Order: sequence, then structure tokens, then C-alpha cells
Amino acid sequence: MRIEIINTGSELLLGTTLNTHGAWMGTELFKLGLRVQRQTTVPDGEAIKEAMAEAMERSDVLIVTGGLGPTSDDVTREALAEVLGVELITDEAALRSIEAFFAKRKRKMAADNKKQALNPVGADILPNANGTAPGIYAPPRMSGDRLCGIFLLPGPPGELRPMFEHEVEPRLRSLSGANEDHHVQILRFTGIGESDFHARLDKELEAIPNLEIGYCARTREVDLRLIGSMRGIEQASDLAVSAFPDECFSDSGESLEEVVVKLLTTQGKKLSIAESCTGGHIASRITNVPGASDIFTHGFVTYSNEAKQQLLGVDKNLLETHGAVSKEVALAMAKGALEQSKACIAVSVTGIAGPGGGSDQKPVGTVWIGIATPTHQAAVKKFHPYKRSVFKQATSQDALNLVRCTLKE
Amino acid sequence: MRIEIINTGSELLLGTTLNTHGAWMGTELFKLGLRVQRQTTVPDGEAIKEAMAEAMERSDVLIVTGGLGPTSDDVTREALAEVLGVELITDEAALRSIEAFFAKRKRKMAADNKKQALNPVGADILPNANGTAPGIYAPPRMSGDRLCGIFLLPGPPGELRPMFEHEVEPRLRSLSGANEDHHVQILRFTGIGESDFHARLDKELEAIPNLEIGYCARTREVDLRLIGSMRGIEQASDLAVSAFPDECFSDSGESLEEVVVKLLTTQGKKLSIAESCTGGHIASRITNVPGASDIFTHGFVTYSNEAKQQLLGVDKNLLETHGAVSKEVALAMAKGALEQSKACIAVSVTGIAGPGGGSDQKPVGTVWIGIATPTHQAAVKKFHPYKRSVFKQATSQDALNLVRCTLKE
Repeated sequence: MRIEIINTGSELLLGTTLNTHGAWMGTELFKLGLRVQRQTTVPDGEAIKEAMAEAMERSDVLIVTGGLGPTSDDVTREALAEVLGVELITDEAALRSIEAFFAKRKRKMAADNKKQALNPVGADILPNANGTAPGIYAPPRMSGDRLCGIFLLPGPPGELRPMFEHEVEPRLRSLSGANEDHHVQILRFTGIGESDFHARLDKELEAIPNLEIGYCARTREVDLRLIGSMRGIEQASDLAVSAFPDECFSDSGESLEEVVVKLLTTQGKKLSIAESCTGGHIASRITNVPGASDIFTHGFVTYSNEAKQQLLGVDKNLLETHGAVSKEVALAMAKGALEQSKACIAVSVTGIAGPGGGSDQKPVGTVWIGIATPTHQAAVKKFHPYKRSVFKQATSQDALNLVRCTLKE
Repeated sequence: MRIEIINTGSELLLGTTLNTHGAWMGTELFKLGLRVQRQTTVPDGEAIKEAMAEAMERSDVLIVTGGLGPTSDDVTREALAEVLGVELITDEAALRSIEAFFAKRKRKMAADNKKQALNPVGADILPNANGTAPGIYAPPRMSGDRLCGIFLLPGPPGELRPMFEHEVEPRLRSLSGANEDHHVQILRFTGIGESDFHARLDKELEAIPNLEIGYCARTREVDLRLIGSMRGIEQASDLAVSAFPDECFSDSGESLEEVVVKLLTTQGKKLSIAESCTGGHIASRITNVPGASDIFTHGFVTYSNEAKQQLLGVDKNLLETHGAVSKEVALAMAKGALEQSKACIAVSVTGIAGPGGGSDQKPVGTVWIGIATPTHQAAVKKFHPYKRSVFKQATSQDALNLVRCTLKE
């Protein structure tokens, strides 16, 4: 099945917004065993029609993102009707749903929003639970010498992604025909990189028949994606987990924070977090998980030495003797967080995020991570000399993984 | 001048690598007053030739990235020769330069690398100081009814970017002629949406000559992008800021947290943050800004009622009488945070992120935001019935904007 994607939006070509739709959809489609053959970005306006007409002649499925808003530069809907040679008519159910969206938020609906309920004759409306723009699906019809089905999806990722999962994927599955022995498993690792897999496992993994292997690297995290027969996936998965038992935190694509919240919930334990250099990022990741309130009560963002003394009871002498970024202070922060919160486990981080504040002994990127339970205390040193946001993400990975490994023991 | 970009590479379509070339080149070209009219991504192999042939017929300039390496799936050079209908011959200077690249690094040059010195007859070699793959420039020649100049650039950003600056930009400048009165300004707003601009300003903005207007919406944030003559931009900018004075937080594309940190720094004030439902996200945003340690010392993530009492001194009776999500508790949290930290201003949030915990009186999405200074206290109610991560982002926008407006007074 030949699939093309068209992303519309002048901001994508101006470079003010990075186009992440292509990569995200490529990854999702790949999980279904499908590949994108071409991706095109065009500005808002007339160019959309031209690009759609061309792509339809080459494709079995065309996915178009953006340009479904209420304003005059949103013309994707009109372009589709013109390319298909059909009229646009108001879909009453879609209109009521847009009205309900505004009513629920106690906002007045602008007249412009009515346009969003227009639908080309013969196409299906795809409901949007997260915004006003419904999507559109025009089932396969002949274009040139091909049958091409077309999806129009809203541009904002928070609207596009759920719609893709709920409305597009099931239709693609039935269009492409299910491949019975086509399975996918995603194993997630932290603390190692793609090259570690290559060095340790490349030959063994490649020797497994009917298996496609892919990697996706993020900050201090790498996915091993296995696609193929159930038997091949099991073989590969066993190999990878036994090679990296401490680094593999999920065999089902869960995030590290989800794994940590689940472990705490299962063990009936509460976590406390004391952060200096990550400035609340670890607590924010934990509280992104629904149900976090059952396992997390106290977070301390102690960005200054005074706050470390006052909120966590860190001894002034420790700070003066060893400095805020030290094993001793990391341990004292974790112990303080445990005592203050009456939690079962506490994690602490103290480091130098930069760009300023580094020294020869403690360069920018240096960080100590502490862990405390009523019976165990430890601290580890890490070095993440990256820009601020990457430093925070890398450090939070290490801190959450230390919590995970401690809970596993 | 009509410019198209083709990015080659299967990894871009699989989604394992994010395509950042498009956005980067879009930004660079825009500085020259040039716009990309279309960007296409194709997999390695035969598809490149097809895409190049199509784009040449539509464009004055075509820029192709990737596929100049030494291996068998690197075929961009061959595709160009075929599309132009000319031979590939070895460029002796390029070959010597590749040999020198290896010699300098004391590495043996593989036989495959010789292929990188091949050049279509009539084209220029673009030197690559940062890798083995030279670029190629085929000067404008007739294709269909157009004259199209073609650049082939290496895929790795560390090789592409310097080559683009040193070799591509000067040639584009002479091809296009400089556009002197071409400017851009980005104004950022929170608390209003794109439709508010349309309702209030559409006609006035459209009446300004030589001005292009674009919008980019994020959670509780919208960019107004103005492109055109300096005079037109000033007119539009004045109109927009006077229509929405409280909502416009930046006229230079800064983030809301950057604006807040800058205001606090200028006023020599410190901020304290008490978070319940946002779980550390506001503190994390503030600490993303370099220099945050000068204005932020204490953050309290009080996810439970006990933590609110213990860390912020919120009265137990208040919690029992009004509930944790109430004006009274938001005010008490802000006051507590101010007292505990000795800061000049404190902001607090307490709300129901969901999916659980809602009621008829206080549905999921309800949130109270409190602000306290030594002389002023206030709280506002907001309603963001979205999924957890969007709820947290929307609430943090409102909280940071409340800090901004209070500091402005």
C-alpha cells in the first residue's frame, strides 16, 4: 500500500515551527507494517490543491494535515472538495458537536467556526474530542488509474494524534488487510545507546529470520522496535533483556515515569522528590501519570542553599565544606525529603545545569543523585554536559531509573 | 524565485530521525527574503530521481539533501546526472581533497569513497571541510519551460549547514537579487485564540498593504507572525497590541517563562511557587530559563492536603470547609509560599487534573490560581477540561501570566 503525507502550513516552510507530524506518523504507520513513500510540505493556500491532486495519482492512501481551522487561510477542506469535484455541505452532527465544544467551555462560538462543519459529499466526518476541527475521510475512489483514500486531519498535535489513533489506524488496518503474523514489540532502555546494541547484539539479532529491527533514540532512552513473527520477536526480546537487564525498563512501550508510578502503586509505597538543578521536572513527569496522587505527596524544589537547609534540613556545614553539588548534600537532601514527607522512598538531585556556575572541579553538567529509604542510602554521580533542557531530561531519567532499580531490589 | 527542497533518507519517513533540515533552511532562506514553496521527503533509491525531475519543472532553485555518501544506497549524484542527461566524471581536485581528509585523520580511505568525487559534466563541486562528501551545484539550465539551478548537499547537519552558508547562500543572493525591505516580527499572546484576532482585527490588518499575516497556535498561546515592510509591520503590531494589551506578552518571540524571569530580574524580585495539580511543571518551566537561580529559590509541590498544611501552613479548617480546590486554599497556599520563602511574589495553583477526582460542583479541569505579594492578594478561577498534560500546560500559562501582569502593575 503506497502512502503519502502532505503537511500544510507556511510556518513549517518558514522554519518557525518544526514539522514533527511526519516523523510521528511514520512511526505509527510502521507499527502497522506500513511505510510512508513520500512526505510533502506546502504553504497554506492554493498550493495544497495542486499537491493533493498530484499525490492522489501516485498513492493508495493520502494523509493531509492542517488547514482545517476556522480562518480564511484554512482551505484544505475546500481543496479536497475541488479535487474530488464534489460540493461541500454542512454536516449537522458535526455542527452540533462544534457548538457543544464551545458550550462545554462556556465560550461563544464565532460565526467562522460554522465552516468547520462543512464536509465534501460522500466523505465521512472524523470526530475531534480535543478541538473544534473535525477530520474528514474520503473513502477510496478512482483518481487517474488508482483508487486513493484521503484523510484530512487537524494540525495541532493534541488533536491530530488521538484522531489518528482512533479514526485513521482502524481504517488503514482494514484497507491494508491484516497481516496475521505481523507483530510488534517495543522494548525501552535507559542508560545505554543504540551503539551498545550494535556492539553487543547485532549479529545475534540479525540472524533471527523474519524480523525487522529498528531503534528510536531519545535523551537517555532508546527504543528497540521488533517487527515480525511472534516467535522471532520473543527470541530477540529475550536476547536484549538478558544483555541489558538493569537498563530495560519496559517491554510494552511504557514511559519510565509510568513504570515507576506502577511499581510504587503495586508496592503500596509513597515517593518524595527533592530537586535542585532539575527544578521540578522530575515531579512534573511523575504527576503526568494519572493516579500519581496515590503515590506522591511532597515535592521540594530547593533551588537555593537556604531552601535546602530550611525545607530539607541540610546542614549548613555540609554545604560549606562540600558544596551544594556533592555526594554528601545529595544524600542529606534525600534523607531530609524522606523525613519531611514520611514517604517510603525519596530521590534527590543536585547539579550544575549551566550555562554558568561551572568550575574545573565541577564543570557544567555535573550532577549527584541521591536515594533514601528507611534502610538504604546511596548516591551516584553523573555527567550530562548538554544544554539546559536536555540536561534536565537526562538527569530526570537517571533519577527515575534509580528509583525503579531500588524498588526492584 | 520559486525554491523547493527535497530531503532524502528512509529514516526520515520511518520517523526514526526528525527532519530538521527543512526548518533550518527555511529560516536561513527567509533571512535572505526567500521562501520555500515546497518541501518533499523521499526514501533512498529510485524515488529521488522521480522527485527531482518533478521539482525541476516547477522551480527556479532546487536544493536536495542527503544521499552523497559512499555506499550503495547513496544515489543522489547518479540521479542528478541521469535527470540532466549528462555523464559523471571524476573531479580530480575533489578526489585529492577526499584523500587529504582521510590522511589528516590517519585513516585509510576505502575504495567506495572514490565515488564521492564523481561530478555531473557542467556542474561545480562545493568543497566540504567537515566530511568526505563534496556538494554539487548545477547552474540554471532549461527544464521544461523553466531555468532551474540545483544544489546537492550532504545529509549530516554538521556538513550541510556550513556548506549552505558558505556555498549556497552567496549563489542564491546573486540569483535572486537582495530584497531590502523584507522584515519579520513575531508577537505572542496568551489567554486569547486565533479567532479573537479574526473577530477584532481581521479587516484592519488586511487593509495594511504589503503585509503577510500568519498565526501559530499552541496551548493557551498564539503567535501573530507579521512579514513585510517595516512600516506595515509597525502599523499591524500597534493595532494588535492595543487591542490585546494584557494578553500580549512578547513582541520578539520570547517564551512566557523567559518574559517572567526577565521582569523579575529587572525588578530585583524573587518568585516562589506552590503547586498542587501542576505537580512541578511551573517550577520546571521557570528553571528552563538560564539565570533562573537569581530569581527562584523555593518551589513547593504539595500534592496532598497534608503537604499543603505542613509545608505551606494552610489551615486544616479551610481545607475541610472549602475543599482543596477553592479560592480560600489557593490564597492560603500563595500566602504560605510567600512567608516560607521570603520572596517578593508567590503564585499557587490547586485544581483537578483528572481523569478522576471531579464532581458536579468541581468538574475535572477546574483550577484556582492564587497570587500574593506583601501588599496584594488575589485568586482567579479557570476551567481547562483537557487531558492531563494539556491541563498542566494551560494552567501553567495562566499562572505565569498572572505573575507577569502583577509584576507589570
